[in-house]
Amino acid sequence: MNYQEPLFNTYVISASILILKVMGQGWITVYRMLKVKSGFRNPEDNNKGLCNPHPSGDQTLTNEYVERSRRMHSNDGENIPYFLVIGLLFILTSPPLWIAQIVLYGFVVARLCHFVAYITAQSHEVRATFFTIGSMAIMGMALYCLYFALLL
Amino acid sequence: MNYQEPLFNTYVISASILILKVMGQGWITVYRMLKVKSGFRNPEDNNKGLCNPHPSGDQTLTNEYVERSRRMHSNDGENIPYFLVIGLLFILTSPPLWIAQIVLYGFVVARLCHFVAYITAQSHEVRATFFTIGSMAIMGMALYCLYFALLL
Amino acid sequence: MNYQEPLFNTYVISASILILKVMGQGWITVYRMLKVKSGFRNPEDNNKGLCNPHPSGDQTLTNEYVERSRRMHSNDGENIPYFLVIGLLFILTSPPLWIAQIVLYGFVVARLCHFVAYITAQSHEVRATFFTIGSMAIMGMALYCLYFALLL
Repeated sequence: MNYQEPLFNTYVISASILILKVMGQGWITVYRMLKVKSGFRNPEDNNKGLCNPHPSGDQTLTNEYVERSRRMHSNDGENIPYFLVIGLLFILTSPPLWIAQIVLYGFVVARLCHFVAYITAQSHEVRATFFTIGSMAIMGMALYCLYFALLL
Repeated sequence: MNYQEPLFNTYVISASILILKVMGQGWITVYRMLKVKSGFRNPEDNNKGLCNPHPSGDQTLTNEYVERSRRMHSNDGENIPYFLVIGLLFILTSPPLWIAQIVLYGFVVARLCHFVAYITAQSHEVRATFFTIGSMAIMGMALYCLYFALLL
Repeated sequence: MNYQEPLFNTYVISASILILKVMGQGWITVYRMLKVKSGFRNPEDNNKGLCNPHPSGDQTLTNEYVERSRRMHSNDGENIPYFLVIGLLFILTSPPLWIAQIVLYGFVVARLCHFVAYITAQSHEVRATFFTIGSMAIMGMALYCLYFALLL
């Protein structure tokens, strides 16, 4: 676990990109709320303020444009935190570097494709395919780490 | 933090099982959605496709059978990620192995019991008991690590 | 990564406090549900039991007092798990201790201020300010770790 180690570096690059992605999703939600001036969630968000100079009083109504970003954020939250842990435990098993790169960078690419498919409202099947690749990567690493820990 | 170390191995075994559990919860939601052909969340999921050969147009209505699995997933998300971090920080304090095994495997067992109690709709009290055991394990480890870090 | 190392200690102190905070948010939700005897989420929670000696049958209705705590918990879940990972990767780059303390303890203070602003229903702007500080800390560390990993 130091930055001179290529396996650890592969993990850090993947983890940093994913964390920027998921934090960015929160900002996409903020951008969308401010753009449509709707989809807020707290009663006090209906009040006049810098974020809301001309309140209409019903800005806490659900807005599909905003909700889509929230669902994407929620889906990230069901995948990325677990990847961040199991990815680290996986590289600590010292796998060949190219395998680690395929699995970790593959997960990053699958999630970025999932992002594009979700935000452009592609079919359920397209979105599910990228979700499945990511989910399989996490579960595969978990099974491998479990096997590795039980074996030793 | 290497797989030859029994404390670290205890952590990896717990973490891997929990990550498989929470990822599996996502797949239970998928299974339930496809079984009842309902409880989808995106407008485009109403469209015809491989996952949805005979769309009825109202498949994004909320479905309690599906929602239960989502609530279980959400409850996992409020517990497991924090365990995954504090469990690692806890074993790095080098506690006696048997204590680490009781706390870490105890958490895993409590969450698996919570899963069974939740999916079979046991009483609030039964479900809350297993939730409480898990929550206390996390908070206990957090207090211990905080104490340990402040002491040194 | 050992407790004799001031950088690691800074991380452990921040992480432990944040984990206690987010677990505590779950208990605030429980407290609020039991106080107003409402805002439960499962059909079986309407049944008579130790937690619910006098069921009224409609205790799964949404309750704003309870929902506020759930939204706070959800906001924590969109920030704290990512901090817990990137904070560790950041201190492994061996930054000067005072910088690590500003960023990590700064994040903790920003989230505690966010908690106070949220639970007392301060304006959207006040809450958003503390959210933004925390979000910037996470994204700044992610960019720094990415740069550091790519550079080496």
